[in-house]
Amino acid sequence: MPLSDRLLLGPGPSNPYPEVAEAFARPLLGHLDPEFLAILDETCDRLRSVFRTSNALTLPISGTGSAGMEACFVNLVEPGDTVIIGVNGVFGERMCEVARRCGTEVVRVDAEWGTEIDPQRLLDAQRSYPHSRVLAVVHAETSTGVENDIAPLRALSETETLLLVDAVTSLAGIPVEVDGWGIDACYSGTQKCLSVPPGLSPVTFSPRAVERVNTRSTPPQSWYLDLGLIGDYVGSARKYHHTAPTAMVVALHAGLGAVLEEGLEESWARHRSVGTRLQESLVELGFSLIAPPTRRLPQLTSTRLPEGRAEATLRKELLMGYGIEVGAGLGAFAGVAWRVGLMGHSARDRSVTTLLGALREIL
Amino acid sequence: MPLSDRLLLGPGPSNPYPEVAEAFARPLLGHLDPEFLAILDETCDRLRSVFRTSNALTLPISGTGSAGMEACFVNLVEPGDTVIIGVNGVFGERMCEVARRCGTEVVRVDAEWGTEIDPQRLLDAQRSYPHSRVLAVVHAETSTGVENDIAPLRALSETETLLLVDAVTSLAGIPVEVDGWGIDACYSGTQKCLSVPPGLSPVTFSPRAVERVNTRSTPPQSWYLDLGLIGDYVGSARKYHHTAPTAMVVALHAGLGAVLEEGLEESWARHRSVGTRLQESLVELGFSLIAPPTRRLPQLTSTRLPEGRAEATLRKELLMGYGIEVGAGLGAFAGVAWRVGLMGHSARDRSVTTLLGALREIL
Repeated sequence: MPLSDRLLLGPGPSNPYPEVAEAFARPLLGHLDPEFLAILDETCDRLRSVFRTSNALTLPISGTGSAGMEACFVNLVEPGDTVIIGVNGVFGERMCEVARRCGTEVVRVDAEWGTEIDPQRLLDAQRSYPHSRVLAVVHAETSTGVENDIAPLRALSETETLLLVDAVTSLAGIPVEVDGWGIDACYSGTQKCLSVPPGLSPVTFSPRAVERVNTRSTPPQSWYLDLGLIGDYVGSARKYHHTAPTAMVVALHAGLGAVLEEGLEESWARHRSVGTRLQESLVELGFSLIAPPTRRLPQLTSTRLPEGRAEATLRKELLMGYGIEVGAGLGAFAGVAWRVGLMGHSARDRSVTTLLGALREIL
Repeated sequence: MPLSDRLLLGPGPSNPYPEVAEAFARPLLGHLDPEFLAILDETCDRLRSVFRTSNALTLPISGTGSAGMEACFVNLVEPGDTVIIGVNGVFGERMCEVARRCGTEVVRVDAEWGTEIDPQRLLDAQRSYPHSRVLAVVHAETSTGVENDIAPLRALSETETLLLVDAVTSLAGIPVEVDGWGIDACYSGTQKCLSVPPGLSPVTFSPRAVERVNTRSTPPQSWYLDLGLIGDYVGSARKYHHTAPTAMVVALHAGLGAVLEEGLEESWARHRSVGTRLQESLVELGFSLIAPPTRRLPQLTSTRLPEGRAEATLRKELLMGYGIEVGAGLGAFAGVAWRVGLMGHSARDRSVTTLLGALREIL
């Protein structure tokens, strides 16, 4: 009989908070039920708290994190626009592909995988392309475990270029300051540090991003992800757009409740504490860490295996023998590295103890 | 204390099958876990059974039914293509808007809301535009309760025009014969006659639709809905695209299991039986039915209220006093009609008895 109650220590999904499992057990509500709409409103309020923003347009998109990425681009850009994108991993690459499919000219600012992007290089690129519509960067690169520094990009608020940030893996795991850092558009996912199953993408747009949406010369190429129309349902107009995924929204509401009950700062501190312990212990076991110390994410550790160890075999042994999931390397690190997540409810000392115990038995 | 365990008799969501609620209580699996991938494979097989197709490309899109609609258009058409769309309700209108945002020329074949579209008129339109890329029509118009006849459109398989069908409200409620009717692309939703919460959209593409996708001159404008990329994850390549909404897929797997255990023909018969009983009883209570008898959907009844009754007041009384949700009229029928759904697990004689009992008490 398989150990199918996994300890989820990959790059997402993480194990849901118990409150999330309870929420799924509640009777299903319709998408126009006043009781559901009250939960939806409170979910948006809770999202504002975790995003640290007062943005009115803050809501869960009915798709996974990649749908949130696409929603940001299709609403903010028009064909022929120039966008600047920082690329140091899979998700920066993905942004380029999504932006190209919107008919934009993409200016890349590349950094080696496993290193950070110098924010000054991004600002310099903006000076070279002062009319660029958007500058986009991934905050926590899930493919490498590196944190890109967002705060200095606040300088973009003095320009006509909007700042778009991917906070899929960072939100609730490390500080994300949407208003404090002058972020104009930010998207995340539910299955990382919010510990809700995958399926929704929290998104927030600043007033100047909303202004941009309202002054488009063409409608967004996606009807499903049109934030003007979605905002008319989530906002006070309550105009039907598509059938909201009510069970998932109620689950997100519960996950956000768990985060805020613990406290956002406390959640960041917990992720920092268990991540540091894991990283120090992995080095003792002969693993080597990919991300540089100053830019290393606590919630997502990318690591090369001890000399002579085949990553797939060892990973399978963890899953089949112990019910522990860790992630394979992605892109440039496929076949040579692991990605170990300690996110949300999975970010516990007990998870570290369990993983280290299993590794010691196997190695 | 509110009666929040609703009897869901609106146009969706319906009450989930008990097996679906059980599935949500299972521990969460990762999107690359072999155990999850086996469930995903079986989910696609079950979808083939309910779609009555052998199409290899059959899978759940990670979004609601409207995402499935958009996925079909963005993959099948390119800017400048001509598409023919039958319009006799909200969802035909929505197809036109989605197609326009793909840069296509839309040829409309309109019929009055509440009536069916004569399939001969659609075939005539195709003869006038023989190079049209797609002819699209809604099978069960959720906004009016009317069934459009799809079988005669099989004749399109002799032309170069692909047949695209919206089966959101029809799938598992009335016969849908993807292979038998020569449908090239079909999408549905989970929250109607499959009785799974909203959040996924089952989609199936025929070999000639896949051929069309493979010979595009430009990539689909949506990266998130790119069926070539999604197929590489769901198919044997298992190439990561986006994080699949694993909890929802496991729930869909369970819902499809319930449908197939009962038997698809038995499910159709049950929907027919309870729908007919409801419709006859509503007429006795002074309601009048909108859809014509021969084209009336059993699973979704559109009805005008007895003379002098305000629909919103009565609907609110049902919800607040009895915990019964019915739907308001949409589009042309807003403010003057109801839409009563008897779908999936909600399609029971007990539901009819409960609704009629409540209506008799209120009226």
